[in-house]
Amino acid sequence: MVGAGQLARMTAQAAIGLGVEFRVLAESASDSAAQVCAGTVIGDYKSAGDLLAFGSGCDVVTFDHEHVPGVHLAVLEGLRPVRPCRTALRFTQDKRSMRERLSLLSAKGVIAARCPKYQPVASMDEVLGFARSRARPRGSDAVGWSTGDVWPVVLKATSGGYDGKGVWICEDRDAAAEVLSHRIDLIAEELVPFDAELAVLVARSPSGQGAAYPVVQTIQQDGICREVIAPAPGLDPDLAAVAQHVGLTIAAELGVTGLLAVELFQVGGELLVNELAMRPHNCGHWTIDAAVTSQFEQHLRAVLDLPLGSPEPMAAHAVMVNVLGGDDADLHGRLPHVQAADPGARVHLYGKPVRPGRKVGHVTVVGDNLAELRERAGRAATYLSLGTDNGHPAAAEHEPQPGP
Amino acid sequence: MVGAGQLARMTAQAAIGLGVEFRVLAESASDSAAQVCAGTVIGDYKSAGDLLAFGSGCDVVTFDHEHVPGVHLAVLEGLRPVRPCRTALRFTQDKRSMRERLSLLSAKGVIAARCPKYQPVASMDEVLGFARSRARPRGSDAVGWSTGDVWPVVLKATSGGYDGKGVWICEDRDAAAEVLSHRIDLIAEELVPFDAELAVLVARSPSGQGAAYPVVQTIQQDGICREVIAPAPGLDPDLAAVAQHVGLTIAAELGVTGLLAVELFQVGGELLVNELAMRPHNCGHWTIDAAVTSQFEQHLRAVLDLPLGSPEPMAAHAVMVNVLGGDDADLHGRLPHVQAADPGARVHLYGKPVRPGRKVGHVTVVGDNLAELRERAGRAATYLSLGTDNGHPAAAEHEPQPGP
Repeated sequence: MVGAGQLARMTAQAAIGLGVEFRVLAESASDSAAQVCAGTVIGDYKSAGDLLAFGSGCDVVTFDHEHVPGVHLAVLEGLRPVRPCRTALRFTQDKRSMRERLSLLSAKGVIAARCPKYQPVASMDEVLGFARSRARPRGSDAVGWSTGDVWPVVLKATSGGYDGKGVWICEDRDAAAEVLSHRIDLIAEELVPFDAELAVLVARSPSGQGAAYPVVQTIQQDGICREVIAPAPGLDPDLAAVAQHVGLTIAAELGVTGLLAVELFQVGGELLVNELAMRPHNCGHWTIDAAVTSQFEQHLRAVLDLPLGSPEPMAAHAVMVNVLGGDDADLHGRLPHVQAADPGARVHLYGKPVRPGRKVGHVTVVGDNLAELRERAGRAATYLSLGTDNGHPAAAEHEPQPGP
Repeated sequence: MVGAGQLARMTAQAAIGLGVEFRVLAESASDSAAQVCAGTVIGDYKSAGDLLAFGSGCDVVTFDHEHVPGVHLAVLEGLRPVRPCRTALRFTQDKRSMRERLSLLSAKGVIAARCPKYQPVASMDEVLGFARSRARPRGSDAVGWSTGDVWPVVLKATSGGYDGKGVWICEDRDAAAEVLSHRIDLIAEELVPFDAELAVLVARSPSGQGAAYPVVQTIQQDGICREVIAPAPGLDPDLAAVAQHVGLTIAAELGVTGLLAVELFQVGGELLVNELAMRPHNCGHWTIDAAVTSQFEQHLRAVLDLPLGSPEPMAAHAVMVNVLGGDDADLHGRLPHVQAADPGARVHLYGKPVRPGRKVGHVTVVGDNLAELRERAGRAATYLSLGTDNGHPAAAEHEPQPGP
């Protein structure tokens, strides 16, 4: 696995059970996965030499991120099976290609989801043109049009973004001008007034076998995933089945091997594709503790062309809340308090230096009472972050409401 | 962790999630845990130098076996916390001490379980004396007495045994003479005509917190654990509670820190203590896939004096079947067939060279229908061992029965 962040770290855990020899290409021996993995090679994934030296020692090469340059992937594919392959990975490296391809699949009726309206932009004129175009009603577009320029406009870097980085919600032309000043490749997108953000995680093997996990709801704060609820509460089962079909179809159409996470906006009974990732994904961390097969084992099974495992959940509900770094780095000092307060909380720490807002761990709780689970997971994760359990994700819903 | 077998390997998996730096003292870089663990030190646990060099680099030292010489443990305890401690470990290293101590606890009524009748033996006269003594009725002994010599007599090496090694069921004096000829320290024990073999797994922390997993039934073949059913089917809940109390009490009385597995014989409503182990144990492998907290994480939490995790099961039933080595070493060639046949089977492989009868992995299945689970786990494990699913543990129960 190229990359040695927490996704590689948790994949290493799964590789132990599967009995496969697992190596990571790490930038440093202190990387999250490098700390725990016997097969660590230190090198730079942006260097063709390092990448090829690493890859040539492997039977199959896969990734914990999508940032390996395409030119290097092409060479690597001449040496070893690379999964997912370069032509699939391109759709995660280039949002414009992704939007073009998925819009085509949507227009042809191959997937029952559309993309947000989008347009490549390189100048203020083009951004304004996009904002104006949004003001014209379109027959198939049920959301977000009016009679003047439509702001905000979402600007996205076509490549290199993650965790909200590379995404700007511009409320006006001044904000757009600031983004344009960075002179990076951009696409403009409509801001979708979603009812919920959903995610569907599927696996596909080179033999063409597919498996879809239950559709989850993801709750973001400041562009970072904060909470995942599995399965998505209150989701129409028919729409959930549509979402799973969308995921499996995109995986097949794009030739994905391994995991594919499809982030979706739900607007009423409609689904829009937000982002794609072809690797283990934050939306699937709950599967370690609450699905028959964890996403990390599933990814390995898929890229090794082993039969896929059951994606069935093991409980009525699972809630995962990310632990974000706070001002106090002493996670391990706070851990015993969380363990004592909630013996059922499943805490996963990533061994990463604590920096404010950085994902340094997650907590999963599993059971029958969703409101209680959200409360427990939120309290545990917030306490680990901050040393207090105020302000956790589910807390707002428990605030006293003003009377009638 | 001193020792790098499969127990250390699975503890390494748990350490990753817990975010603790985990090292193993391995005899060789090819040891099961050494293959996967970043913190591997190669050395000999029987060498005081190797052991102390390893231990002095750790905050806490624990074990995946009970074979470290007591004299070395005493020195190590001067340097670092050793958990479990030497005085507790002694009861797993010396069966005579264990029998003496537990018989005393039983006689005082501290634990509601007795030991099999036993006697240290060093000569044929003493073995015959034990066999004769068994022929006298004893007031408190409901099982296994008659009017002549009572054979078989069980001879056990007082130290060094595991997986049936060091245990001989002698049908007559010739068999006993053969065992005596090895000139090792022995105890003689009655052969208990049990209704079931049970095991209770508990954890205890230095702070004195305890946690007990559900009592399981273990099924042995040729002295090796073949199958574990959690919870033990049909066990009277009151007797299960007694077994858990016995486990927690022994852990407290013996000053155990970490896990304690107590192997029990059930004879009607009576419990007898067979063996003790103070480490992760085969009877708890099911907890990886089917308990809120796995035994491996629990052991780490206990020896690190962290609050213990919930030992609750996540499903109605779990069945674990060991994968024993067969004649064909190509486990990985057979794995895809098992994965394809049963996507819900949780296979764990240990990376060990395959030798006939050796534990090289295990399979766990989880669900509601116990008969089906036993069938599935048995088929998967037997196919991995032998390339056929005939003769698996649950198969005999499905044989056509002769008609009336």
